[in-house]
Formats: sequence, structure tokens, C-alpha cells
Amino acid sequence: MNAWQVVSQMDNCMDIVAGIDLGGTDTKFGLVNKKGELLAYHSIPTDPNIGYQPFFELLGREIEQLMLSIGDGYRLAGVSVGAPSGNQKNGTIDSASNLKWPEKLPISDILNSIFGLPVTVSNDANAAVLGEMYYGLGRGIKDLICITLGTGLGCGIISDGRLITGANGHAGELGHVIAVENGRQCTCGRKGCLETYVSATGMVRSVLETEPEILQRSLLGNLNRNSLTSKKITSAAMEGDELALEVFDKTAKIFGKTLANSVALLNPRLIILTGGLAKAEKFLLDPTIHYTNHYLLEVHKGSVEIKTSEMNNKKTAILGAAAFMWLRLEGIGQTTF
Amino acid sequence: MNAWQVVSQMDNCMDIVAGIDLGGTDTKFGLVNKKGELLAYHSIPTDPNIGYQPFFELLGREIEQLMLSIGDGYRLAGVSVGAPSGNQKNGTIDSASNLKWPEKLPISDILNSIFGLPVTVSNDANAAVLGEMYYGLGRGIKDLICITLGTGLGCGIISDGRLITGANGHAGELGHVIAVENGRQCTCGRKGCLETYVSATGMVRSVLETEPEILQRSLLGNLNRNSLTSKKITSAAMEGDELALEVFDKTAKIFGKTLANSVALLNPRLIILTGGLAKAEKFLLDPTIHYTNHYLLEVHKGSVEIKTSEMNNKKTAILGAAAFMWLRLEGIGQTTF
Repeated sequence: MNAWQVVSQMDNCMDIVAGIDLGGTDTKFGLVNKKGELLAYHSIPTDPNIGYQPFFELLGREIEQLMLSIGDGYRLAGVSVGAPSGNQKNGTIDSASNLKWPEKLPISDILNSIFGLPVTVSNDANAAVLGEMYYGLGRGIKDLICITLGTGLGCGIISDGRLITGANGHAGELGHVIAVENGRQCTCGRKGCLETYVSATGMVRSVLETEPEILQRSLLGNLNRNSLTSKKITSAAMEGDELALEVFDKTAKIFGKTLANSVALLNPRLIILTGGLAKAEKFLLDPTIHYTNHYLLEVHKGSVEIKTSEMNNKKTAILGAAAFMWLRLEGIGQTTF
Repeated sequence: MNAWQVVSQMDNCMDIVAGIDLGGTDTKFGLVNKKGELLAYHSIPTDPNIGYQPFFELLGREIEQLMLSIGDGYRLAGVSVGAPSGNQKNGTIDSASNLKWPEKLPISDILNSIFGLPVTVSNDANAAVLGEMYYGLGRGIKDLICITLGTGLGCGIISDGRLITGANGHAGELGHVIAVENGRQCTCGRKGCLETYVSATGMVRSVLETEPEILQRSLLGNLNRNSLTSKKITSAAMEGDELALEVFDKTAKIFGKTLANSVALLNPRLIILTGGLAKAEKFLLDPTIHYTNHYLLEVHKGSVEIKTSEMNNKKTAILGAAAFMWLRLEGIGQTTF
């Protein structure tokens, strides 16, 4: 009998669920009640080098610590993970380009064996868009897209109030839309994918591909190539660095064209940007809105807004993952999936 | 009291609906029973120059003739039109790039005043995808896309059994996805839209843009520039004409890349090509499948089929438009919209 099962035998406990946002760099997790309140939160680095079994056992111990931190009176009712290429249809992580774990990792079975509790799995971006629809800017909106800008670029789509999963649970791969013909090599094996330009790593590549003379004149030219991050590019942009501003503009142009093409297909009312890179609001959001409008079909102009998430970045995908589990536990709203 | 109202007072009549496929070149229409059988069919040229009111009055007289042609015992219960930029949400045709009628033409009101009967309006490609899902290759498939290849390029999307309409009824504008940066001028005012390459008119442009020396060596070089059609390009390809084959290959490459990008977003099980150009199966379908697979993300490879419609070209959109009306009249299946 493990700790979870002992707790689950207690009476008068309030049910809570663990929401996990498994990212390419960090794994964020928290304990969420039915109202969508995050009672406790923590994160650990995602380290694919130690192997998936030890990693998820570590995650299990961390969540156990989190349960202890909030005291008695709570019962963990389920565990829900949003992960890159998380597949809600079969409870797996399917060939996530940014992780080095085996193809079709049976994450649902792994977490179930650790926790002995119900597990739901979703794409991290699907979790984010659900979080936004239930608790964020998407409340009351039936057609929205949420784009997660981090190590890679993820995308969750809700149309007429329903999550678009596709035939195999692999819809929303906006990060792997080919945005530039014969463009940059992507980790997926193809060239020119959107996320090779529009992501934290994509922006770093944009700086590193700059001609040496231009790079030398920039604040970014003084940095060690290996220590360059999107945060440092944002800092340089804040100081008016020409190269940093140009990189944001180039990023926004490619992003805007691809967003306009997505609007042509899906006609959403709202596009929400979230994730670390989305914080560079003035430098990324404003030009992205400009270029999207530039490329929009006339009939779509004025019908779609682009905003950065107002939710705490750490929370969106965690709350969204938790929302999946609440829907399963409560059996409510499942017709909208 | 007009002819429709007289008929509607007769007892023991079988209800039928008029399905109209309003295209950029021709308007096709037919009388359809509940089973999806096309009892009578006719078409007239779409002539935007005579003004929309006289045009739709002519269409009304033509449908009256069609009713007479099938004899007694039928009652026209509704009229349903699939049109370029037809908007089912507000019963209008919204700024169809290929027609010269006013923006936001209130087609539902116009047809209602002519027929005195219920009218439903849809995008012609949405009508086609519904026709395929109810009566064609899409039976039993819940995630499919239907692409109409004619004067322009239309697209209807069904995800998890539901038509994707978007926030304003303007989803599925695949023809206006920007496929080539700074590409050909489109009638929509922008540059590089998919339909400026992948459509009957797009292929003619591809031939006309060929260097004179190459054009002269082709069977197509002997033709009057103004009389060149996609059918003549197909005929030349059948005779092994190098330029014609190259134009098909170029068209398929642009098409395949854009389809792969659409699969990335929507993860459909099936893509159905329909319309006049889709008949050039060997020359267009085969290389389109090749290039789509080439550009597909690994996780989508093998999960999507591309086929040409097996329905009579004239029928698909008519039956799909009729399906809309049957859904309204019968009140069935509306939860899937």
C-alpha cells in the first residue's frame, strides 16, 4: 500500500489532482482543486539523460513532498500530464522531437504504476488551451488557439468549444508547419519548420546566423555563443540593441505569416501566446500582431485578436492538465471532447 | 400564390429539396430526396455581369422547370445553396473573390423571396465535404478534408464528425493560405495564395509564365493564349508533353507542401479532391500524394490518405447542400454542427 492509497482511505478529504507540465527544459507540476486553484507548485529540470523510469520516480517523490507540504485534509484523486506530443487518445508520448525518450513512451502506464491512480495525458499545448478556456483569457470564447512559446512551439486548438485532436491525437502541430522553404534543419528531420525560427532556440539561432561584423556591433556579440538565450536577446532589445530588435522583427514576420495561414483555415476569435518567450511582449507581440494583420485575408481582418496570456506562465498548462482530469473524474463536459 | 406554394398544398407528395452549387463559372443545381438521390439535374453559366437579382430569378425559373420535368408527386420543401464564401451563420455570400456581386450578398433573403421556402446557405466546399461524409468516400470517417479544385480552390473541414466553421463562418480558406512568399497576385488583393497556383486558372498561369522558347517547344505553345484551359493542359500531358507534365509537377509540389502543413494542424484521416481539375488523376493526384508524403511530419506519415472523389463531380456539392437542408428540415444530426 503506497502513500497515495493510504491517503485515499481517509474520510472527509478534499479531492485534488496533480497537474504536470512536462516541458523540454523543465517539468512543472502542481496540486489543483476543482475550482482551478493551484494549492502548491514546484518544478524540476527535465533530464532525459537519466532515463524515463528514474525520472518519473523522482517526479513521484516530488509530488509526494508537495502533498505533505499542504498538510492533511486532501486526497490525490488523479494525475494528469501535459507533454510534448502527449497523446490523449492512447496515453502515450509520441516521438517528441525535443525529448530523447523512446518513441511511444507509455506515460499513462508509467505514472499509473507509480501513483496507483487514474492518469490522463494530453499535448502540453492542448492542456494550455484548456487552461485558458476554463480559467484564462479564453473564458466565454468558443474558437481559440493557444500557442506555447518555449524551447519549441506548441499549439492547442479549440473550435466551437471543442478541442481539435485529429484522427490520431496529433492535431495542432503548428510548430512543424513548414514556414520557410528549404529553411533551417529541424530536430524532426525536415527543414524550415516554424519552431526553428519562432521559439527560444530559434531566436538564438537567428542571432548566431548573423554575419560576424553585424554581430560584433551588437551587445549580443560579446556573449559566449553557448550561453546565449532568448532572455539575453530580450534584455538586449530592451537596451535598444539593433540586432536584437531585428531578430524579434524577423521572428514576428515568419510567425505572423504562419498565424495568418492558420486563421485562414480555422477562423479563430482569439490567439493566446504563452510560455517564456511570450513574456517579451512589446518586442514579440506587437510586431506579430502587425505582420499577422498584414498577411490576413480581408474577410478575417478585425475578427481575430492576439494576446499574451494573463495567467501565470507556470500555471496555464498545469491547470489545463488538471482540467482534463477533473473532466474525467466528474464526467462533466465530456461531450465537448 | 406562386408555383411552389401551390405544390406544397398537395397531399401525399414526397418532399424533395433543391441543392444549388454556385460556382465561379457554372451554377449546378438538382432536386434531391431524403436518401440523397439526385432526381433531376441542370446547370447554367454563372454570369455576374447581369446582376444578382435577374440571375437568381433565372435560377428560380430553371428550378421550376426541373420540378416540372420530374412530374407530379413531389413537393419542394427547401432550397439550399453552396457558394464561394457562402456563410451559413448569417445566410450571406461574403466577398467572394471570384464573383463580382456586392459584398455580403443576402442570398438567403433573395432565394427566400423567390421561392417562399426555407433556405440554407453554405460554403461550396463545406457542402462538398458534407456530401462526401454522408454519401461519398467519407462515410464512416470522422476527420476529413474535402478540397474543391475548379476556377479557385475551396476547402471544407470535418473534425471528429463536426464541420469546422470558425468564429464567423469563414474557416477552410485553404485557397487563400499564402503558399509562395511574394508569389502571384491573387484576386483577394494579396500575393502567393495557394489558389493562384493550384486551380484551373493557376495552372493556366503556370503555362503562360513559361519562357517563350520552352513554350514554343510544347503542344501548348500552338494554342491561343486566351483559349488555354486546364483541360487542354491535361490533354497535352496525356500526350506526354514535357511542359504540361512539368506544370502538373510544379502544381503538385506547392499543393503537397500546403496539404502537409494542413495535416500538421488538423491530423485528418482522409483528404478528398473534387472538382474539374481533380479529374486529371494520374497527373495531379499521384504527384500530390508523393509531395505531401515528402513534406509530412513523421508522426503523420501513413495516417492520412489522399483520394479523388468517386462521386459524380456535378453531384457532390449539390448533395452536400441538400444534406444541410435535410438536417434543418428533419432536425436530425444538428448536434454535429
